[in-house]
Amino acid sequence: MNSEMITKRLEMLREELRREHLGAYIFNSSDPHNSEYTADHWKGREWISGFNGSAGIAVVTINSAALWTDSRYFIAAEEQLKGTEFQLMKLKIEGTPTIAEWLSKELADADSKEVGVDGSTHTVADIRQLKDELRQQGGLTLRTNFDVLQRIWKERPEMPLDTIMLHPIELAGETTQEKLSRIRKALREVHADGMLMSQLDDIAWTLNLRGRDVHCCPVFVSYLLIGSHHTTLFVDERKLTAEIENYLSEQNIAIKPYEAVSDALNKWGEWNILIDPNEINETLARQVKANEIINKPSPVAAMKAVKNETEIQGMRNAMLKDGIALVKWLRWLNPAVRAGGQTEISISNKLEQLRSEQPLYRGLSFDTIAGYEEHGAIVHYEATPETDKSLEPRGLLLVDSGAQYQDGTTDITRTIALGPLTDEQRKVYTLVLKGHIDLQLLHFPDGASGTQLDAVARAPLWRAGLNFLHGTGHGVGAYLNVHEGPHQIRMEWKPTPLRKGMTVTDEPGIYLEGRFGVRTENVLLVQEAEETECGRFLCFETLTLCPIDTTPILPELLNKEEKDWLNAYHAEVYEKIAPHLNDEERLWLKEATSHI
Amino acid sequence: MNSEMITKRLEMLREELRREHLGAYIFNSSDPHNSEYTADHWKGREWISGFNGSAGIAVVTINSAALWTDSRYFIAAEEQLKGTEFQLMKLKIEGTPTIAEWLSKELADADSKEVGVDGSTHTVADIRQLKDELRQQGGLTLRTNFDVLQRIWKERPEMPLDTIMLHPIELAGETTQEKLSRIRKALREVHADGMLMSQLDDIAWTLNLRGRDVHCCPVFVSYLLIGSHHTTLFVDERKLTAEIENYLSEQNIAIKPYEAVSDALNKWGEWNILIDPNEINETLARQVKANEIINKPSPVAAMKAVKNETEIQGMRNAMLKDGIALVKWLRWLNPAVRAGGQTEISISNKLEQLRSEQPLYRGLSFDTIAGYEEHGAIVHYEATPETDKSLEPRGLLLVDSGAQYQDGTTDITRTIALGPLTDEQRKVYTLVLKGHIDLQLLHFPDGASGTQLDAVARAPLWRAGLNFLHGTGHGVGAYLNVHEGPHQIRMEWKPTPLRKGMTVTDEPGIYLEGRFGVRTENVLLVQEAEETECGRFLCFETLTLCPIDTTPILPELLNKEEKDWLNAYHAEVYEKIAPHLNDEERLWLKEATSHI
Repeated sequence: MNSEMITKRLEMLREELRREHLGAYIFNSSDPHNSEYTADHWKGREWISGFNGSAGIAVVTINSAALWTDSRYFIAAEEQLKGTEFQLMKLKIEGTPTIAEWLSKELADADSKEVGVDGSTHTVADIRQLKDELRQQGGLTLRTNFDVLQRIWKERPEMPLDTIMLHPIELAGETTQEKLSRIRKALREVHADGMLMSQLDDIAWTLNLRGRDVHCCPVFVSYLLIGSHHTTLFVDERKLTAEIENYLSEQNIAIKPYEAVSDALNKWGEWNILIDPNEINETLARQVKANEIINKPSPVAAMKAVKNETEIQGMRNAMLKDGIALVKWLRWLNPAVRAGGQTEISISNKLEQLRSEQPLYRGLSFDTIAGYEEHGAIVHYEATPETDKSLEPRGLLLVDSGAQYQDGTTDITRTIALGPLTDEQRKVYTLVLKGHIDLQLLHFPDGASGTQLDAVARAPLWRAGLNFLHGTGHGVGAYLNVHEGPHQIRMEWKPTPLRKGMTVTDEPGIYLEGRFGVRTENVLLVQEAEETECGRFLCFETLTLCPIDTTPILPELLNKEEKDWLNAYHAEVYEKIAPHLNDEERLWLKEATSHI
Repeated sequence: MNSEMITKRLEMLREELRREHLGAYIFNSSDPHNSEYTADHWKGREWISGFNGSAGIAVVTINSAALWTDSRYFIAAEEQLKGTEFQLMKLKIEGTPTIAEWLSKELADADSKEVGVDGSTHTVADIRQLKDELRQQGGLTLRTNFDVLQRIWKERPEMPLDTIMLHPIELAGETTQEKLSRIRKALREVHADGMLMSQLDDIAWTLNLRGRDVHCCPVFVSYLLIGSHHTTLFVDERKLTAEIENYLSEQNIAIKPYEAVSDALNKWGEWNILIDPNEINETLARQVKANEIINKPSPVAAMKAVKNETEIQGMRNAMLKDGIALVKWLRWLNPAVRAGGQTEISISNKLEQLRSEQPLYRGLSFDTIAGYEEHGAIVHYEATPETDKSLEPRGLLLVDSGAQYQDGTTDITRTIALGPLTDEQRKVYTLVLKGHIDLQLLHFPDGASGTQLDAVARAPLWRAGLNFLHGTGHGVGAYLNVHEGPHQIRMEWKPTPLRKGMTVTDEPGIYLEGRFGVRTENVLLVQEAEETECGRFLCFETLTLCPIDTTPILPELLNKEEKDWLNAYHAEVYEKIAPHLNDEERLWLKEATSHI
């Protein structure tokens, strides 16, 4: 993206702002379905600012422009915004103003104190909070019914039209009828007659369908309206094959055009409808005419988060296949780097190729993050031809990657020594591993939430004056989105308890700007531990199968339990993966998983 | 309390319920000032139920009665409710109904679906939540303007009338004018022209005054109304000496009768007033007539929580004196138990006597909890002549105690081996100590709240299938209440960050019903640690000075760092306390603090 292009777009935008008598416009990075990753049609924030991270908000006034993003993207955003008039605002860093605070200063002498935003890409809760904050900052107001992008984004991509596929019961483990019946039961408990579902992965999970509308996420753009006796899918019919039409008809699910959802909400009449204010977009929520609107959390995310036995088996299969591909890649990596000519992009491509050879491979679950040395300190770094760095046989390479297999989704980070390391690198590597292991070793009371466990992964780092600003763990879908809620392990308060059958990542990391980054990530499964007079306890089973580089470890920083865990984990990795390797690979794995 | 008396009181209550056409009445354990510990005048829940714990809610319908309390009081409540018709409801235990759920069943066929409660002893937030919950349970309604105790509690104690004392600037470290000016600045930041203060320790802190109205808490019953240019104290004038009247007049603080606060709130007129819904009682909040009522947290608790240098020096003095008394008592304890004739009450009295010999002693900061063997498993056990247990030279004695000195407040728990222990006792003792030490060793990012640290103290216990249901730590006042907010270390979400200068206890414990209990508690001070490229870090300094019994420790369960901490702590205890002991005591302390 060149900065002149951005300047031109900002000019077009400001013309519209003047015409509409708006003081500013806010662009977020979501779509009408509160998606983290969206189809290109909704990448308006990227279009206006040039910043392509998955999270960020751009705000433009007549005279100024700024972009807020979190620590994962500080360095990437700085580079991408270079030469534009966008000022980078670092979230959670002392001194960073909120959007409302910044706007109140920028609009102090402006003609218009009204701020525009597209209500259809913001949830009800987003808009409520934004309105509150703007009001408190000297009475700024918000206009939500004007989508400026429709006017100025001439080459805007169409909405995606990929076909929808069945997710067979052999992999889903629960029929759509069973899921609908559980959802209806949960709705009755909160006195709701029905609900609107807009979260794309919730819809895919409920209907046992998958799509290809969003890069790396097997979902399809649609809404699902569930009543006490009827269910309607609002979707562009061009996405439906005869097979899917039949399937939906068998399930007694009506099909209507995507845009017809507004009308349907308008006629909800004398029933009570559940509208999750953290899911449904403002524009759509305003259409709802019902006896009572029940603003409560949707029950679906919590159901989807707890995997059934079939899904767990699928995840295990996927982890094994991913582990095989990763071991083949790891064995190849160091010699290839020593031979020369490898870069961040080339080794990512090699990994993708090895994964694609595995059965039921359906693509990446997110764009591979491969950051060598100082690029490893950019939390969500994605190499481009311009930034692509040559790999030398020294220092640390951080690779966070994952794949979609039809039987499960993977997400794994390994940090690999390409050769000699500094003492600081060894120390940071070992402390990150210590936090990673301490979390996996934990037992915890049934009912505890991720926030209530988080400190265990951070304590070894904190003691050394180290910390990371991202979460410690997130749910992982079963052939669905790689980031799944509602549970999380993080410092911010997330009340959802961890329950038996949930998947969650364990991924502490440390990022030293301009020097290097370390992260180690496994996917865990919540399992039952013991029941005592103090209650029921849960623990973690490790699903990811891939060796952790032992060469950087300073053994004196690990205690006996931590070393025992690592040795036992490596024994398991060898036992499960070795049968699928050739002799050379098996020898390499034996060495890589030997005791420390 | 005998159960016939309770039966008679319930009869009187039900007569009033019928007369007022109420289906039920709810009694809590607070006063109009949202106090944890109250003057006897407000101990209505104890009067109606016979249960004397500091936390609990009694609910009585025409045909049934129940009492909700938390895990600290399960065993005590069970004993005290024996023979009455009160059913014990254990909070946070699976299967326990909420008050609203229970009432909806009990009142299913009742004539009246209206529930009575004294609005003056419940905060605005309490009432709001209760109303919501009752409404959701089949439409029960709440009546808040009827104080049934005024009708049926004939021998109700008068409101307390003890005199108020100055807390000199040499101990307070900040003048009332400085405090008022900080409060007014905080009020302006939320666009408030003033606030009503009702929390008794906040008022005492703001005015640099202390009282004797509440057992163990040096506070006085009053309200403080702060405007932008005037301040009024609403208090019974009989509590004021000439000295205090002069002092208040110098500070430009007007004095009005306690009851006049309603009228004053009624005439707030065109100004904006801050009313903290978690502090101000419902009845009083209804009196407020203002331009705008700003429902936000009071800024005072957070200011009071951060101790200034003078207060910290006072706390250090108090801890030293408390440590001297405790060491003398510990040296005395085991020989006295072996000599025979000692009980839970007798050894508590001895400790109180030794504390009272220290300079500036002003009484206990809470009633001593001394629980031997199975009584140690009753979290807030208080021995009575009926339960008082003889101490034998074996097993564990848990003693949680504290004192008020004019220069500081103390709170300490030690669990002491009176002789041989079981293996289980040693293991539990060591794991509790491990959690206790791990929290003290922690460094953490500036801005972290107690919830974000809590798991560190629990992890060693969880790993062994052990847990405790109370908080891990609370703030401690500077010659004020022994329990202070707004920060806490606990599993429940408490967003207030720990800040440099805050005091907080570290008190993990394990309670095995019918067998024994272990708790180890120190008071810590939040201090600055290091600043690195990852941000500013805080750590804890231990204020409490008293040996921790090393005889029960299983050394193989502690790692090197934990042992190092214990040895260093004991070296410090010896160094500071030894100079104040006689030869015999000093020798004992040398032995008690020797390296493990």
